[in-house]
Amino acid sequence: MSEKPTSRGRMVTAAAHLFQKRGYHGTGLIEILEASGAPKGSFYHHFPDGKEQLAEVAMAMAGEVVNAMIDRAFANATSFSEGAARLTTDIADWFERSGFSEGCPVTSVLLETVPGSERLTAACQAIFQSWIEAAEAQALRLGRADPNALATGLLIALEGAWIVARAQRSRRPFEIAAALLINSGDRAS
Amino acid sequence: MSEKPTSRGRMVTAAAHLFQKRGYHGTGLIEILEASGAPKGSFYHHFPDGKEQLAEVAMAMAGEVVNAMIDRAFANATSFSEGAARLTTDIADWFERSGFSEGCPVTSVLLETVPGSERLTAACQAIFQSWIEAAEAQALRLGRADPNALATGLLIALEGAWIVARAQRSRRPFEIAAALLINSGDRAS
Repeated sequence: MSEKPTSRGRMVTAAAHLFQKRGYHGTGLIEILEASGAPKGSFYHHFPDGKEQLAEVAMAMAGEVVNAMIDRAFANATSFSEGAARLTTDIADWFERSGFSEGCPVTSVLLETVPGSERLTAACQAIFQSWIEAAEAQALRLGRADPNALATGLLIALEGAWIVARAQRSRRPFEIAAALLINSGDRAS
Repeated sequence: MSEKPTSRGRMVTAAAHLFQKRGYHGTGLIEILEASGAPKGSFYHHFPDGKEQLAEVAMAMAGEVVNAMIDRAFANATSFSEGAARLTTDIADWFERSGFSEGCPVTSVLLETVPGSERLTAACQAIFQSWIEAAEAQALRLGRADPNALATGLLIALEGAWIVARAQRSRRPFEIAAALLINSGDRAS
């Protein structure tokens, strides 16, 4: 039961990729419309509040994608560091598939708009928080002490690796991040 | 022997802060000129290649600042993790002084321009590489095995903490990053 993506859906997907590649201000509405193939006249129909609203929706979509990746990576894990290593590999695969050119969908917007834009600040905070909570739930399930610090450490390592990997055009920073997490992740077990 | 900053110097400093706050494309030349108080006509005299050249110079300046911070943080350290913890605290102080609003001077440009701009890609790569080499030299001095992975892990943890701290408006991510590094940093000792 595959649905044909709507113009709205195509605009959101195109925006997400362009923001990940060139950031929020580096991406123009005309580029987004061209990449999506959506009719120009439809933009303000779908996004009456303009580009900020589109970015909010695009980040929320990417937020759900990563939440699902977290759940999948930890589904069969028997330790926090095993799930963390699997998640790190999955994010590295995603990054490599983009030709080493697309950053984290939240960070790419955050660095230009937080705390300047109230709306996008709230959106970035909420998505990071949802990722931390998803990882925290797994740390709790796996019987770990201090699950919030562990989950936040996982987010820190992933975000840092994504940036260094982009400069180096390499998966190696993700491997180094996984090693940081393994050492910290099993210490308290 | 304090020198009055030149117009060129003021433009570079103003650009560095604005890029750290709003990113590369989110910062206009007019804002940079206004913030620097430099005469408008002088911009292309100092930066004939335009904004890309200004960003390259601003990042190189910030690169030197961080290199000096690395050397200072490790100067009296008796272990890699001690120096790493000191550096993490110093970066957190810098970030807090900006009102939790200014990101890493390299990352703020990197996420919008790498690999799209050849010139800025080369600049970001060179600065990250210089930071890794500075930390690597300290790891070697402190007798550590695999100094490159340790130094890269330090950069990953710092960059990740800087991003999560910006969303959370808090120093805590830097403390969590330091804990990740302590656990990994002393493992092989």
